[in-house]
Amino acid sequence: MSPTVYYGPLVNPKNLHEYQALPHALLGVSSAGIIEWIEPDVPDSSVLQDVLVKHGYTSVEDVKIVELRRGEFLLPGFIDTHTHAPQFPNTGIGQQYELLDWLQNVTFPMEAKFADVAFARDAYKRVVRRVLDSGTTTCCYYGSLHLDATKELANIVNDAGQRAFVGKCNMNRNSPDNYVEASAESSIADTKTLISYINGLTSTSSGPPLVQPILTPRFAISCTSPLLSSLGSLDPSLRVQTHISENPSEVAFTHSLFPACASYTAVYDTHGLLRHNTILAHGVHLTDEELDLIKTREAGISHCPTSNFNLSSGVAPVGSWLDRGIKVGLGTDVSGGFSPSILTAVQHASIASKVVSLNGGGKDKGPFTGRQLTIPALLFLATLGGAQVCDLASTVGSFEPGKAFDALLVNTDESAGNPGLWVAGESSVETRLEQFLFCGDDRNVKEVYVQGRVVGGTAFRARAS
Amino acid sequence: MSPTVYYGPLVNPKNLHEYQALPHALLGVSSAGIIEWIEPDVPDSSVLQDVLVKHGYTSVEDVKIVELRRGEFLLPGFIDTHTHAPQFPNTGIGQQYELLDWLQNVTFPMEAKFADVAFARDAYKRVVRRVLDSGTTTCCYYGSLHLDATKELANIVNDAGQRAFVGKCNMNRNSPDNYVEASAESSIADTKTLISYINGLTSTSSGPPLVQPILTPRFAISCTSPLLSSLGSLDPSLRVQTHISENPSEVAFTHSLFPACASYTAVYDTHGLLRHNTILAHGVHLTDEELDLIKTREAGISHCPTSNFNLSSGVAPVGSWLDRGIKVGLGTDVSGGFSPSILTAVQHASIASKVVSLNGGGKDKGPFTGRQLTIPALLFLATLGGAQVCDLASTVGSFEPGKAFDALLVNTDESAGNPGLWVAGESSVETRLEQFLFCGDDRNVKEVYVQGRVVGGTAFRARAS
Ligand SMILES: [Zn+2]
Ligand SMILES: [Zn+2]
Repeated sequence: MSPTVYYGPLVNPKNLHEYQALPHALLGVSSAGIIEWIEPDVPDSSVLQDVLVKHGYTSVEDVKIVELRRGEFLLPGFIDTHTHAPQFPNTGIGQQYELLDWLQNVTFPMEAKFADVAFARDAYKRVVRRVLDSGTTTCCYYGSLHLDATKELANIVNDAGQRAFVGKCNMNRNSPDNYVEASAESSIADTKTLISYINGLTSTSSGPPLVQPILTPRFAISCTSPLLSSLGSLDPSLRVQTHISENPSEVAFTHSLFPACASYTAVYDTHGLLRHNTILAHGVHLTDEELDLIKTREAGISHCPTSNFNLSSGVAPVGSWLDRGIKVGLGTDVSGGFSPSILTAVQHASIASKVVSLNGGGKDKGPFTGRQLTIPALLFLATLGGAQVCDLASTVGSFEPGKAFDALLVNTDESAGNPGLWVAGESSVETRLEQFLFCGDDRNVKEVYVQGRVVGGTAFRARAS
Repeated sequence: MSPTVYYGPLVNPKNLHEYQALPHALLGVSSAGIIEWIEPDVPDSSVLQDVLVKHGYTSVEDVKIVELRRGEFLLPGFIDTHTHAPQFPNTGIGQQYELLDWLQNVTFPMEAKFADVAFARDAYKRVVRRVLDSGTTTCCYYGSLHLDATKELANIVNDAGQRAFVGKCNMNRNSPDNYVEASAESSIADTKTLISYINGLTSTSSGPPLVQPILTPRFAISCTSPLLSSLGSLDPSLRVQTHISENPSEVAFTHSLFPACASYTAVYDTHGLLRHNTILAHGVHLTDEELDLIKTREAGISHCPTSNFNLSSGVAPVGSWLDRGIKVGLGTDVSGGFSPSILTAVQHASIASKVVSLNGGGKDKGPFTGRQLTIPALLFLATLGGAQVCDLASTVGSFEPGKAFDALLVNTDESAGNPGLWVAGESSVETRLEQFLFCGDDRNVKEVYVQGRVVGGTAFRARAS
């Protein structure tokens, strides 16, 4: 790739309270896909040459220049901190169940089919393409429990050029006879094999590898204590993803399985699985003590509002997590959630926060507790917050020199063909962002960049077809 | 048009508890767009000729036969019982406000622009196209307060061939200086002019006219008592649409304006505006006494969950309305709601019902109170329930001989291009319906029929371009 300079409107999350909206930004990306510099305000393209010279180019011929059109803006790519690749074929069904019945009746039967590697390969190709085209540049994938199918998932993600964490489920109890691991030992052996396999895949020349392994104990219910201990004693630099405190029946069952542990959170903590690189999905019913422990261990929470609504799990008090300083990102949790898009997660996170606000209380505890999430906060959760949860905030989540260029070229123009998005020609960048977040869909995602490379989006697909 | 026979899967709402899913239905539509007969099960196309002869055709050459492809099914068209045409340009913005501030800061400034008829014409063409292509065959439109712009809206709806109710807002107080009617008299005069104008537009040869006028007092706050009385004394066969009990501050303000009335509902009732053909939007905070009065008067409620969440209005207890036997339909309430699609309203109605269920209570009061809405109930609200609310259930809302063929040809196949919808080839009609309701978008709406005529959908647009 040649060095590339992007010129046009740019949205850049800063923190939970604010984001930059730059109508005339110039952003330089190296041939390795790293952001080298950002000029926040270059209102006139006639000074472009001067700016480029300032940054060490001898002329505009040295670089590829991508000038954004009317209605377009750059946004850091979305980060999906929790989804299940083998559940995508079930998207949109089973919403009548709560968690434990849904697993038995809907989820486990589908995941069991991924014993068939050819079936898995076909499905995973479609999964990864959909997730990328939805604008998710970094994704935390649960596979099924199958080693071979999950290798395929890692291959497909790697070939597609998506940044991702891929893990196979550990689950050696409380699972169907045809969908359970034989022993803690075989589960660990398969896990180690997968880790080596994924570490062997990667070959980027700069920055961390795009696809990385992640430990994936499904949830405490499905893992024996020895299995959890063995996972906790593997290389501590490995990230961990699991579920926590999603549904009251699940919480009660977990307590009954681990009577010696003070809480659901303590189960993971006592097994060495609650650490700064742990991603805890849901957390709807966590107690104050558990939240304190999560904060102390610097673990992060993946807020999955679509799923929490859909499976009647509850409404997560995200504002109180933010006021505690806990890391929070968004997750689609397909197929507990019925959409592969972080845009839907943003909309439902907004709704969830408004439901919490309507229920009242806690507004004295900080700027977020009991209040609706603002646009800056929603944007942060979808990008930089997710990067923090994935322990990847030095690499992605916002536009900063030294970070990878993982980005979306968003097109809010009528030409995108999404009838739900109505943006007048003269709208500000802020208005375009807000309308994209609430009304956008994959048709508004024109280009998807990971580490500077175009890997998805409507224009990508049009060129490919 | 020639008589047409549709052959393939068909979904037909029956009541709140059940719908028909017929994999091999045959449905005959007259040249006037009226459903003449339905054969529920014709598994083999070789007997088609016999069936057609039975229904009075001498051969298959007498009729146009539309045979559905894999992944397609017919569904009655969606009915949007509440939306605001002049607010579409604001879709997706202003979600930080509650109702009264949102009206002042976001809504009234936009609606005021519709004083410019050319501006209105351009916007309304885009509005009606979007609503139709989203699958809404019957729509209850609020215009702005402007007579001329609302005439344009009626023209455009009529030209597009949509079934609709079109009204201009009555609002002669508590409104901005640049967006308020001069007097009750001028408001009534304009209303009468609009009614005559719309009644002059219509020219269908059978059934009720497609576009009909509707009285549209914005809400009690914006109308003086004389204005409400004058509206209530017009032809009682005119339908009425208004807002009710959306937000606590609005309810309190209304009580202060009408101290002699026992309730918000009583305000409309005492002015002759609460009747069997009245559509009340929202109703989030209605009391038991008000619900009793609404039931007694046989008025209907338009449930607008997207808007209720978005403007932090509250979560409507729809199940309790249904158990009381009150007529209920769905509304998008753009731009209080951020989507023009009834599919979004279905998803958010499901979520709202789950939030009510999570809050507990009332489950002893009937099959719906305090419980999540099922797929049959959601489908009913989106179609036949909406038809009841519009006092149009003898004409549309389901497939029955004698009703108009207002329908969607839904395409759930991968070829539709919606990456959010994943349906395997062998799925049942029931599964396809569920996935369409939760994951579908306008790309899955291939043809939109109103009174037998194709007026929207992806195939319609492809042929037009
Ligand atoms: Zn999950
Ligand atoms: Zn409204």
